Amino acid sequence: MITSPTLLLDKRKCLKNIESMAAKAKRNGIIFRPHFKTHQSLEVGRWFKDFGVDKITVSSMQMAAYFATDGWNDITVAFPVNVLEHELISELGSKITLNIQVESADAVHLLAQKVRTPLQVYIKIDVGTQRTGIPFSDFGRIDDTLNSIKEYAHFQFCGFITHTGHSYQARSSEEVMNIHLKSMDFINQLKDIYVPQYPNLILSTGDTPTCSVADDFLEIDEIRPGNFVFYDWMQHIIGACHFDQIAMVMACPVVAIHPNRQEFVVHGGAVHLSKDFIFKTDGSRDYGRIVSLANNGWSSPWEQSYVTALSQEHGIIRTTSELLKQIKVGDLIGIVPIHSCLSVSAMRTYLTLEGKSIQCMGY
Amino acid sequence: MITSPTLLLDKRKCLKNIESMAAKAKRNGIIFRPHFKTHQSLEVGRWFKDFGVDKITVSSMQMAAYFATDGWNDITVAFPVNVLEHELISELGSKITLNIQVESADAVHLLAQKVRTPLQVYIKIDVGTQRTGIPFSDFGRIDDTLNSIKEYAHFQFCGFITHTGHSYQARSSEEVMNIHLKSMDFINQLKDIYVPQYPNLILSTGDTPTCSVADDFLEIDEIRPGNFVFYDWMQHIIGACHFDQIAMVMACPVVAIHPNRQEFVVHGGAVHLSKDFIFKTDGSRDYGRIVSLANNGWSSPWEQSYVTALSQEHGIIRTTSELLKQIKVGDLIGIVPIHSCLSVSAMRTYLTLEGKSIQCMGY
Repeated sequence: MITSPTLLLDKRKCLKNIESMAAKAKRNGIIFRPHFKTHQSLEVGRWFKDFGVDKITVSSMQMAAYFATDGWNDITVAFPVNVLEHELISELGSKITLNIQVESADAVHLLAQKVRTPLQVYIKIDVGTQRTGIPFSDFGRIDDTLNSIKEYAHFQFCGFITHTGHSYQARSSEEVMNIHLKSMDFINQLKDIYVPQYPNLILSTGDTPTCSVADDFLEIDEIRPGNFVFYDWMQHIIGACHFDQIAMVMACPVVAIHPNRQEFVVHGGAVHLSKDFIFKTDGSRDYGRIVSLANNGWSSPWEQSYVTALSQEHGIIRTTSELLKQIKVGDLIGIVPIHSCLSVSAMRTYLTLEGKSIQCMGY
Repeated sequence: MITSPTLLLDKRKCLKNIESMAAKAKRNGIIFRPHFKTHQSLEVGRWFKDFGVDKITVSSMQMAAYFATDGWNDITVAFPVNVLEHELISELGSKITLNIQVESADAVHLLAQKVRTPLQVYIKIDVGTQRTGIPFSDFGRIDDTLNSIKEYAHFQFCGFITHTGHSYQARSSEEVMNIHLKSMDFINQLKDIYVPQYPNLILSTGDTPTCSVADDFLEIDEIRPGNFVFYDWMQHIIGACHFDQIAMVMACPVVAIHPNRQEFVVHGGAVHLSKDFIFKTDGSRDYGRIVSLANNGWSSPWEQSYVTALSQEHGIIRTTSELLKQIKVGDLIGIVPIHSCLSVSAMRTYLTLEGKSIQCMGY
């Protein structure tokens, strides 16, 4: 019996999402190195093993350490290496194949002063997201970084890593596809330039929108999507998934009804869902869509019903007068999260429809 | 030695914030019932006892249970009562003075079917925030709710509770003051109507902006501010605090520098700071301000320097060319959180400048 905000996981949908992405990688003959920052759970990690996964991606050195405790021994930390963490890096580097990401010679030299264990080093290339990475066309900085890696015998240059994060700006699968193709074009140019010198270099890319929409990965050797394991409303809006593929909703108790403004209030706020939102066409904010809960899952989204505001513990939901009449205090409704990664991170635990509680890192 | 994102607390500033608010309540002869949802910590809770605090506010029944374990025995849950939690309510109601908040006769009747322990009941009145509460002028619904409470001998009507949450829209202390005065006007009218019948009723209000700015609380009997314990950049923008009163910053390692776009990247993202932001006048988003860290605290905010974007683990900071030249990979900088309550909730632990680690509920 659910009595407080609870993140629900439809394991069947989740397994289908994993199966489908693993099959796509296999069809393309490329490495599938899923990002585990979305589910953050040893339990869900084990589900991937059934699909042949033995290499993973994480977003922090702490997360690498967490998954290393469960037998994962080939882990990429897809985040610019934090040289202050040299002790943890050394410890992990002596135990597993630890793949790190760099984007400057400075970081490489600083790291080499402190870390003596072998590290697999990838250079991050910015293919347009402008978050991290050396801009695609800055060959001077790429070569400087490459040369700095070669100075240290225990550092092995492995390839280039990209993240087409600007795919999150897309609002249709066609837009995602255009971004993918442009990014592929940059990556192919990189390969043309560097493969003659480094015939085994790996080109790794990863973001759920392009990996979901594209069928052909051209020169790509490895994909690292993460969010696809659960998807969410954002991915649906982007055009990366069908609603039926979204494997998570937040069950929330109804605590107040306000017919005068066609709204009701649930226990379910920023500390449960996080504060990511999508702008609707009228400029108002959509912090999540509403579904009805059933024993075996949940309904389609209610029409014209949105989480319009979130405070620490409150979710404010605007709906139609007709739907509002069917709601009463003490009901449970479901909210499809805008961003499942952040909802998981906020909750640190979720419940399968079969009633199994799954704990995440830091729970 | 800090090596990963760490929330720092200046205990001295925090104690001054508590002292100042406690003194203001005392001067006004009103009850000081601070909201503990901001610090969420037994340790910080104990600091309040030195200022004579013996009544507190929380935002969930779970949080009430948490603080009850540390001897707090008069707790208000300032959230519309969630009737599904009747077991926890019964358990707590049998141990401590448990003050709940209702806003409909429906909720009262549902609760009475399940809970037999004594409860102190407050009716929530909406003074303009449009989040929860019976609209101030809806006397029909106020009376219905009042009458429903009187039907049950174990439910004691105690008074009205308000939250002037729209004060967060203010951008100067004058605007906060206007909102406070308007809200006081509503509250005084309520008192005029209901005091003849309920001479001991308590009028409780609470939000950090109005409690920080106002010096006179007129007919108010009790204040419940929470965020003031740490304050944050949002409160500074609202006009509720001076920068020197902000008692928290997030220490973040610098992991990448991008001179081509006057930006640098830190480890410190949405999972650390939450995604609250303030719109700047040019329409761009400000997810936090930057300070330099020192052993005994931090500097003033850097000029023209902002967190412009947050993803799960990344913070992107735009600054001036001049300041950027002074930054290198491996440095630690501080980010003043936009909303300290949510940063605390995301981190669940913080570190005093003296190096003491403080754990929060759910750590």
